[in-house]
Amino acid sequence: MINYPNGKNNFTQKINYSNRGMQLENDINIANKYYLNNDIAIIHKKPIPIQIVEVDYPNRKSAMIKKAFYQTPSTTDYNGIFNGKYIDFEAKETTSLTSFSLNNIHEHQIEHMNKVYLHGGITFIVVRFKKLDKTFIMPFKKFIIYYERAKNGGRKSIKIEEFEKNSFEIFFNYRIRVDYITLIKKYESEFLYEEMER
Amino acid sequence: MINYPNGKNNFTQKINYSNRGMQLENDINIANKYYLNNDIAIIHKKPIPIQIVEVDYPNRKSAMIKKAFYQTPSTTDYNGIFNGKYIDFEAKETTSLTSFSLNNIHEHQIEHMNKVYLHGGITFIVVRFKKLDKTFIMPFKKFIIYYERAKNGGRKSIKIEEFEKNSFEIFFNYRIRVDYITLIKKYESEFLYEEMER
Repeated sequence: MINYPNGKNNFTQKINYSNRGMQLENDINIANKYYLNNDIAIIHKKPIPIQIVEVDYPNRKSAMIKKAFYQTPSTTDYNGIFNGKYIDFEAKETTSLTSFSLNNIHEHQIEHMNKVYLHGGITFIVVRFKKLDKTFIMPFKKFIIYYERAKNGGRKSIKIEEFEKNSFEIFFNYRIRVDYITLIKKYESEFLYEEMER
Repeated sequence: MINYPNGKNNFTQKINYSNRGMQLENDINIANKYYLNNDIAIIHKKPIPIQIVEVDYPNRKSAMIKKAFYQTPSTTDYNGIFNGKYIDFEAKETTSLTSFSLNNIHEHQIEHMNKVYLHGGITFIVVRFKKLDKTFIMPFKKFIIYYERAKNGGRKSIKIEEFEKNSFEIFFNYRIRVDYITLIKKYESEFLYEEMER
Protein backbone atom coordinates (compact mmCIF):
# COMPACT_ATOMS: atom_id res chain seq x y z
CA MET A 1 0.00 0.00 0.00
CA ILE A 2 1.43 3.37 -1.00
CA ASN A 3 1.21 6.24 1.43
CA TYR A 4 2.70 9.34 -0.07
CA PRO A 5 2.38 12.85 1.33
CA ASN A 6 0.08 15.20 -0.55
CA GLY A 7 1.28 16.66 -3.85
CA LYS A 8 2.84 20.06 -4.12
CA ASN A 9 0.06 21.72 -6.05
CA ASN A 10 -3.69 21.52 -6.25
CA PHE A 11 -3.81 19.59 -9.47
CA THR A 12 -1.47 16.71 -8.86
CA GLN A 13 -2.40 14.17 -6.29
CA LYS A 14 -0.33 11.36 -4.87
CA ILE A 15 -2.46 8.30 -4.37
CA ASN A 16 -3.35 7.58 -0.78
CA TYR A 17 -5.54 4.51 -0.73
CA SER A 18 -6.44 4.93 2.91
CA ASN A 19 -8.24 8.18 1.99
CA ARG A 20 -10.24 6.79 -0.88
CA GLY A 21 -12.93 5.52 1.42
CA MET A 22 -12.88 2.07 -0.12
CA GLN A 23 -13.12 0.28 3.18
CA LEU A 24 -15.40 -2.27 1.52
CA GLU A 25 -12.76 -3.01 -1.12
CA ASN A 26 -10.25 -3.51 1.65
CA ASP A 27 -12.60 -5.84 3.56
CA ILE A 28 -13.23 -7.91 0.43
CA ASN A 29 -9.51 -8.16 -0.27
CA ILE A 30 -8.99 -9.46 3.26
CA ALA A 31 -11.79 -11.99 2.80
CA ASN A 32 -10.31 -13.13 -0.53
CA LYS A 33 -6.89 -13.56 1.07
CA TYR A 34 -8.48 -15.60 3.83
CA TYR A 35 -10.33 -17.79 1.32
CA LEU A 36 -7.13 -18.27 -0.66
CA ASN A 37 -4.96 -19.13 2.33
CA ASN A 38 -7.55 -21.54 3.69
CA ASP A 39 -8.21 -23.15 0.32
CA ILE A 40 -11.89 -22.13 0.34
CA ALA A 41 -12.12 -20.11 -2.88
CA ILE A 42 -9.84 -18.42 -5.42
CA ILE A 43 -11.15 -14.93 -6.01
CA HIS A 44 -9.10 -11.92 -7.09
CA LYS A 45 -9.80 -8.28 -7.75
CA LYS A 46 -9.03 -7.40 -11.35
CA PRO A 47 -6.53 -4.63 -11.95
CA ILE A 48 -7.97 -1.24 -12.93
CA PRO A 49 -8.04 -1.01 -16.73
CA ILE A 50 -5.61 1.62 -17.93
CA GLN A 51 -4.68 2.89 -21.36
CA ILE A 52 -0.93 3.40 -21.41
CA VAL A 53 0.31 6.13 -23.73
CA GLU A 54 3.90 6.78 -22.76
CA VAL A 55 6.56 4.72 -20.99
CA ASP A 56 10.03 5.65 -19.88
CA TYR A 57 12.76 3.01 -19.93
CA PRO A 58 15.67 4.19 -17.79
CA ASN A 59 17.20 0.73 -18.16
CA ARG A 60 16.31 -2.76 -19.30
CA LYS A 61 14.91 -3.90 -15.98
CA SER A 62 12.66 -1.02 -15.04
CA ALA A 63 9.97 0.90 -16.84
CA MET A 64 8.05 3.94 -15.64
CA ILE A 65 4.68 4.80 -17.08
CA LYS A 66 4.64 8.57 -17.70
CA LYS A 67 1.26 9.00 -19.32
CA ALA A 68 -1.82 6.85 -18.99
CA PHE A 69 -5.57 7.18 -18.62
CA TYR A 70 -8.23 5.32 -16.70
CA GLN A 71 -10.58 3.28 -18.89
CA THR A 72 -14.17 2.37 -18.14
CA PRO A 73 -14.27 -1.23 -16.93
CA SER A 74 -16.20 -3.54 -19.25
CA THR A 75 -16.64 -6.27 -16.67
CA THR A 76 -16.95 -6.44 -12.89
CA ASP A 77 -14.21 -5.96 -10.32
CA TYR A 78 -13.99 -9.46 -8.88
CA ASN A 79 -14.06 -12.97 -10.27
CA GLY A 80 -12.81 -16.43 -9.55
CA ILE A 81 -13.86 -19.93 -8.56
CA PHE A 82 -15.67 -21.39 -5.57
CA ASN A 83 -16.75 -24.99 -5.24
CA GLY A 84 -16.07 -25.59 -8.94
CA LYS A 85 -18.32 -22.68 -9.91
CA TYR A 86 -17.52 -19.40 -11.59
CA ILE A 87 -18.01 -16.38 -9.29
CA ASP A 88 -18.35 -12.82 -10.59
CA PHE A 89 -19.37 -9.68 -8.70
CA GLU A 90 -19.18 -5.96 -8.26
CA ALA A 91 -18.86 -4.11 -4.93
CA LYS A 92 -20.03 -0.59 -4.14
CA GLU A 93 -20.36 1.66 -1.13
CA THR A 94 -22.98 4.34 -0.66
CA THR A 95 -23.24 7.18 1.84
CA SER A 96 -27.03 7.22 1.46
CA LEU A 97 -29.10 6.19 4.47
CA THR A 98 -32.10 5.11 2.44
CA SER A 99 -31.24 3.74 -1.03
CA PHE A 100 -28.59 2.63 -3.51
CA SER A 101 -28.54 4.50 -6.81
CA LEU A 102 -28.47 2.30 -9.91
CA ASN A 103 -26.10 4.81 -11.49
CA ASN A 104 -23.37 3.15 -9.44
CA ILE A 105 -23.30 0.16 -11.81
CA HIS A 106 -22.37 0.71 -15.46
CA GLU A 107 -24.69 -0.65 -18.11
CA HIS A 108 -22.00 -2.87 -19.68
CA GLN A 109 -21.27 -4.31 -16.22
CA ILE A 110 -24.93 -5.29 -15.99
CA GLU A 111 -24.78 -6.82 -19.48
CA HIS A 112 -21.69 -8.73 -18.38
CA MET A 113 -23.35 -10.04 -15.21
CA ASN A 114 -26.44 -10.99 -17.18
CA LYS A 115 -24.34 -13.10 -19.55
CA VAL A 116 -22.51 -14.74 -16.66
CA TYR A 117 -25.84 -15.49 -14.99
CA LEU A 118 -27.27 -17.10 -18.12
CA HIS A 119 -24.09 -19.18 -18.52
CA GLY A 120 -24.49 -20.70 -15.07
CA GLY A 121 -22.14 -18.49 -13.07
CA ILE A 122 -22.79 -17.16 -9.59
CA THR A 123 -23.09 -13.40 -9.90
CA PHE A 124 -24.19 -10.67 -7.50
CA ILE A 125 -23.53 -7.18 -6.18
CA VAL A 126 -22.12 -6.34 -2.76
CA VAL A 127 -23.47 -3.04 -1.43
CA ARG A 128 -22.43 -1.32 1.76
CA PHE A 129 -24.48 1.43 3.35
CA LYS A 130 -21.50 3.06 5.06
CA LYS A 131 -23.36 5.25 7.49
CA LEU A 132 -25.57 2.38 8.61
CA ASP A 133 -22.69 -0.09 8.73
CA LYS A 134 -24.78 -2.61 6.80
CA THR A 135 -23.46 -4.75 3.92
CA PHE A 136 -25.69 -6.81 1.63
CA ILE A 137 -25.12 -9.27 -1.16
CA MET A 138 -27.89 -9.22 -3.72
CA PRO A 139 -28.07 -12.06 -6.28
CA PHE A 140 -28.06 -10.79 -9.85
CA LYS A 141 -31.47 -12.33 -10.47
CA LYS A 142 -32.94 -10.02 -7.82
CA PHE A 143 -30.88 -7.02 -8.87
CA ILE A 144 -32.05 -7.27 -12.49
CA ILE A 145 -35.67 -6.86 -11.35
CA TYR A 146 -34.83 -3.42 -9.93
CA TYR A 147 -32.75 -2.53 -12.94
CA GLU A 148 -35.62 -3.41 -15.27
CA ARG A 149 -38.03 -1.46 -13.10
CA ALA A 150 -35.83 1.62 -13.58
CA LYS A 151 -35.60 1.04 -17.32
CA ASN A 152 -39.38 0.91 -17.48
CA GLY A 153 -39.65 4.31 -15.86
CA GLY A 154 -39.68 3.23 -12.21
CA ARG A 155 -37.40 4.48 -9.44
CA LYS A 156 -33.68 4.68 -10.26
CA SER A 157 -32.53 3.21 -6.99
CA ILE A 158 -32.98 0.23 -4.70
CA LYS A 159 -34.37 1.06 -1.27
CA ILE A 160 -32.75 -0.32 1.84
CA GLU A 161 -36.01 -2.13 2.65
CA GLU A 162 -35.68 -3.87 -0.71
CA PHE A 163 -32.16 -4.98 0.20
CA GLU A 164 -33.51 -6.26 3.50
CA LYS A 165 -36.16 -8.24 1.66
CA ASN A 166 -34.31 -9.48 -1.44
CA SER A 167 -30.68 -9.86 -0.48
CA PHE A 168 -28.56 -11.34 2.27
CA GLU A 169 -27.00 -9.19 4.95
CA ILE A 170 -23.38 -10.00 5.71
CA PHE A 171 -22.75 -10.06 9.42
CA PHE A 172 -19.18 -9.44 10.54
CA ASN A 173 -17.43 -12.37 12.06
CA TYR A 174 -14.30 -12.27 14.13
CA ARG A 175 -12.02 -13.38 11.31
CA ILE A 176 -13.27 -11.51 8.28
CA ARG A 177 -15.65 -8.58 8.02
CA VAL A 178 -17.21 -9.52 4.70
CA ASP A 179 -17.66 -13.28 4.69
CA TYR A 180 -19.68 -13.45 1.48
CA ILE A 181 -18.69 -17.02 0.58
CA THR A 182 -20.45 -18.45 3.63
CA LEU A 183 -23.71 -16.91 2.37
CA ILE A 184 -23.17 -18.21 -1.15
CA LYS A 185 -22.51 -21.68 0.17
CA LYS A 186 -25.69 -21.56 2.24
CA TYR A 187 -27.98 -20.04 -0.41
CA GLU A 188 -26.30 -21.20 -3.63
CA SER A 189 -29.54 -21.94 -5.50
CA GLU A 190 -30.71 -18.36 -4.91
CA PHE A 191 -27.80 -17.23 -7.10
CA LEU A 192 -28.07 -19.73 -9.92
CA TYR A 193 -30.02 -19.40 -13.12
CA GLU A 194 -33.18 -21.47 -13.40
CA GLU A 195 -34.64 -22.09 -16.83
CA MET A 196 -38.19 -21.55 -15.63
CA GLU A 197 -37.71 -18.02 -14.42
CA ARG A 198 -37.25 -16.03 -17.57
CA MET B 1 -5.66 0.45 -30.42
CA ILE B 2 -3.17 3.30 -29.99
CA ASN B 3 -0.74 3.97 -32.77
CA TYR B 4 1.50 6.82 -31.83
CA PRO B 5 4.66 7.84 -33.68
CA ASN B 6 7.95 7.05 -31.99
CA GLY B 7 9.04 9.16 -29.01
CA LYS B 8 11.41 12.07 -29.35
CA ASN B 9 14.33 10.52 -27.49
CA ASN B 10 15.80 7.11 -26.96
CA PHE B 11 14.45 6.65 -23.48
CA THR B 12 10.80 7.46 -23.86
CA GLN B 13 8.68 5.23 -25.97
CA LYS B 14 5.15 5.73 -27.13
CA ILE B 15 3.30 2.43 -27.01
CA ASN B 16 2.69 0.85 -30.37
CA TYR B 17 0.88 -2.42 -29.79
CA SER B 18 1.29 -3.55 -33.37
CA ASN B 19 5.05 -3.68 -32.77
CA ARG B 20 4.91 -5.70 -29.59
CA GLY B 21 4.75 -8.96 -31.44
CA MET B 22 1.80 -10.18 -29.44
CA GLN B 23 -0.02 -11.62 -32.41
CA LEU B 24 -1.17 -14.48 -30.19
CA GLU B 25 -2.74 -12.04 -27.74
CA ASN B 26 -4.51 -10.38 -30.62
CA ASP B 27 -5.78 -13.73 -31.95
CA ILE B 28 -7.08 -14.70 -28.51
CA ASN B 29 -8.85 -11.36 -28.13
CA ILE B 30 -10.54 -11.94 -31.48
CA ALA B 31 -11.58 -15.44 -30.41
CA ASN B 32 -12.95 -14.10 -27.11
CA LYS B 33 -14.94 -11.43 -28.92
CA TYR B 34 -16.34 -14.09 -31.23
CA TYR B 35 -17.29 -16.32 -28.27
CA LEU B 36 -18.93 -13.36 -26.54
CA ASN B 37 -20.90 -12.18 -29.56
CA ASN B 38 -22.07 -15.69 -30.32
CA ASP B 39 -22.93 -16.49 -26.70
CA ILE B 40 -20.44 -19.36 -26.56
CA ALA B 41 -18.23 -18.30 -23.64
CA ILE B 42 -17.46 -15.19 -21.58
CA ILE B 43 -13.71 -14.83 -21.38
CA HIS B 44 -11.79 -11.60 -20.92
CA LYS B 45 -8.16 -10.61 -20.70
CA LYS B 46 -7.38 -9.06 -17.35
CA PRO B 47 -5.88 -5.58 -17.38
CA ILE B 48 -2.13 -5.35 -16.76
CA PRO B 49 -1.57 -4.77 -13.04
CA ILE B 50 -0.14 -1.32 -12.45
CA GLN B 51 0.90 0.54 -9.32
CA ILE B 52 -0.24 4.13 -9.68
CA VAL B 53 1.86 6.71 -7.87
CA GLU B 54 0.82 10.08 -9.23
CA VAL B 55 -2.31 11.37 -10.93
CA ASP B 56 -3.07 14.75 -12.48
CA TYR B 57 -6.62 16.10 -12.30
CA PRO B 58 -6.97 18.90 -14.86
CA ASN B 59 -10.73 18.90 -14.18
CA ARG B 60 -13.39 16.82 -12.48
CA LYS B 61 -14.08 14.59 -15.45
CA SER B 62 -10.60 13.63 -16.57
CA ALA B 63 -7.59 12.25 -14.80
CA MET B 64 -4.14 11.64 -16.23
CA ILE B 65 -1.79 9.16 -14.64
CA LYS B 66 1.66 10.76 -14.53
CA LYS B 67 3.65 8.15 -12.70
CA ALA B 68 3.02 4.42 -12.46
CA PHE B 69 4.88 1.13 -12.53
CA TYR B 70 4.19 -2.31 -13.93
CA GLN B 71 3.58 -4.96 -11.30
CA THR B 72 4.25 -8.66 -11.57
CA PRO B 73 0.94 -10.42 -12.25
CA SER B 74 -0.09 -12.79 -9.45
CA THR B 75 -2.60 -14.67 -11.59
CA THR B 76 -2.95 -15.56 -15.27
CA ASP B 77 -3.95 -13.25 -18.11
CA TYR B 78 -7.31 -14.71 -19.07
CA ASN B 79 -10.30 -16.03 -17.19
CA GLY B 80 -14.04 -16.45 -17.52
CA ILE B 81 -16.81 -18.98 -17.91
CA PHE B 82 -17.63 -21.64 -20.50
CA ASN B 83 -20.43 -24.16 -20.21
CA GLY B 84 -20.92 -23.25 -16.54
CA LYS B 85 -17.26 -23.94 -15.78
CA TYR B 86 -14.51 -21.61 -14.67
CA ILE B 87 -11.79 -21.15 -17.32
CA ASP B 88 -8.32 -19.79 -16.51
CA PHE B 89 -5.23 -19.67 -18.72
CA GLU B 90 -2.00 -18.02 -19.69
CA ALA B 91 -0.77 -17.44 -23.26
CA LYS B 92 2.83 -17.15 -24.44
CA GLU B 93 4.74 -16.95 -27.69
CA THR B 94 8.21 -18.27 -28.28
CA THR B 95 10.65 -17.68 -31.11
CA SER B 96 12.34 -21.01 -30.42
CA LEU B 97 12.06 -23.73 -33.05
CA THR B 98 12.53 -26.58 -30.62
CA SER B 99 11.23 -25.90 -27.10
CA PHE B 100 9.33 -23.62 -24.73
CA SER B 101 11.29 -22.33 -21.75
CA LEU B 102 9.57 -22.74 -18.39
CA ASN B 103 10.95 -19.34 -17.40
CA ASN B 104 8.10 -17.85 -19.43
CA ILE B 105 5.61 -18.70 -16.69
CA HIS B 106 6.02 -17.11 -13.25
CA GLU B 107 6.03 -19.38 -10.24
CA HIS B 108 3.01 -17.65 -8.64
CA GLN B 109 1.09 -18.09 -11.89
CA ILE B 110 1.77 -21.81 -11.65
CA GLU B 111 0.63 -21.81 -8.01
CA HIS B 112 -2.51 -20.00 -9.10
CA MET B 113 -3.25 -22.48 -11.89
CA ASN B 114 -2.61 -25.39 -9.54
CA LYS B 115 -5.20 -24.03 -7.09
CA VAL B 116 -7.72 -23.47 -9.88
CA TYR B 117 -7.12 -27.00 -11.12
CA LEU B 118 -7.67 -28.52 -7.68
CA HIS B 119 -10.87 -26.47 -7.27
CA GLY B 120 -12.38 -27.95 -10.43
CA GLY B 121 -11.59 -25.19 -12.92
CA ILE B 122 -10.40 -25.71 -16.48
CA THR B 123 -6.87 -24.39 -16.68
CA PHE B 124 -4.17 -24.58 -19.33
CA ILE B 125 -1.42 -22.74 -21.18
CA VAL B 126 -1.57 -21.60 -24.80
CA VAL B 127 1.85 -21.65 -26.45
CA ARG B 128 2.67 -20.45 -29.93
CA PHE B 129 5.87 -21.37 -31.71
CA LYS B 130 5.91 -18.26 -33.88
CA LYS B 131 8.46 -19.38 -36.42
CA LEU B 132 6.72 -22.72 -36.90
CA ASP B 133 3.27 -21.16 -36.95
CA LYS B 134 2.07 -23.79 -34.49
CA THR B 135 -0.17 -23.11 -31.48
CA PHE B 136 -0.86 -25.61 -28.73
CA ILE B 137 -3.07 -25.74 -25.68
CA MET B 138 -1.62 -27.85 -22.92
CA PRO B 139 -3.84 -28.82 -19.98
CA PHE B 140 -2.39 -27.79 -16.65
CA LYS B 141 -2.27 -31.41 -15.52
CA LYS B 142 0.22 -32.15 -18.30
CA PHE B 143 2.11 -28.90 -17.88
CA ILE B 144 2.71 -29.54 -14.17
CA ILE B 145 4.53 -32.80 -15.01
CA TYR B 146 7.14 -30.82 -16.98
CA TYR B 147 7.31 -28.15 -14.33
CA GLU B 148 7.97 -30.75 -11.64
CA ARG B 149 10.57 -32.44 -13.85
CA ALA B 150 12.41 -29.11 -14.00
CA LYS B 151 12.14 -28.61 -10.26
CA ASN B 152 13.66 -32.04 -9.76
CA GLY B 153 16.70 -31.11 -11.82
CA GLY B 154 15.41 -32.08 -15.24
CA ARG B 155 15.30 -29.91 -18.36
CA LYS B 156 13.95 -26.39 -17.91
CA SER B 157 11.85 -26.42 -21.04
CA ILE B 158 9.16 -28.37 -22.83
CA LYS B 159 10.18 -29.77 -26.20
CA ILE B 160 7.97 -29.32 -29.22
CA GLU B 161 7.68 -33.11 -29.46
CA GLU B 162 6.27 -33.05 -25.94
CA PHE B 163 3.68 -30.50 -26.99
CA GLU B 164 2.80 -32.70 -29.94
CA LYS B 165 2.33 -35.63 -27.60
CA ASN B 166 0.70 -34.05 -24.55
CA SER B 167 -1.27 -31.09 -25.77
CA PHE B 168 -3.78 -30.17 -28.47
CA GLU B 169 -2.76 -28.27 -31.53
CA ILE B 170 -5.08 -25.45 -32.51
CA PHE B 171 -5.75 -25.43 -36.23
CA PHE B 172 -6.81 -22.13 -37.74
CA ASN B 173 -10.34 -21.98 -38.98
CA TYR B 174 -11.76 -19.40 -41.31
CA ARG B 175 -13.49 -17.40 -38.58
CA ILE B 176 -10.99 -17.36 -35.75
CA ARG B 177 -7.33 -18.23 -35.70
CA VAL B 178 -7.21 -19.57 -32.15
CA ASP B 179 -10.40 -21.52 -31.56
CA TYR B 180 -9.40 -22.95 -28.19
CA ILE B 181 -12.96 -23.40 -26.88
CA THR B 182 -13.74 -26.02 -29.54
CA LEU B 183 -10.86 -28.13 -28.22
CA ILE B 184 -11.93 -27.68 -24.62
CA LYS B 185 -15.45 -28.72 -25.49
CA LYS B 186 -14.17 -31.82 -27.24
CA TYR B 187 -11.59 -32.86 -24.64
CA GLU B 188 -13.06 -31.39 -21.46
CA SER B 189 -12.18 -34.33 -19.23
CA GLU B 190 -8.51 -33.98 -20.21
CA PHE B 191 -8.53 -30.61 -18.47
CA LEU B 192 -10.41 -31.49 -15.30
CA TYR B 193 -9.00 -32.65 -12.03
CA GLU B 194 -9.48 -36.29 -11.14
CA GLU B 195 -9.12 -37.38 -7.53
CA MET B 196 -7.19 -40.52 -8.44
CA GLU B 197 -4.34 -38.79 -10.16
CA ARG B 198 -2.49 -37.08 -7.38
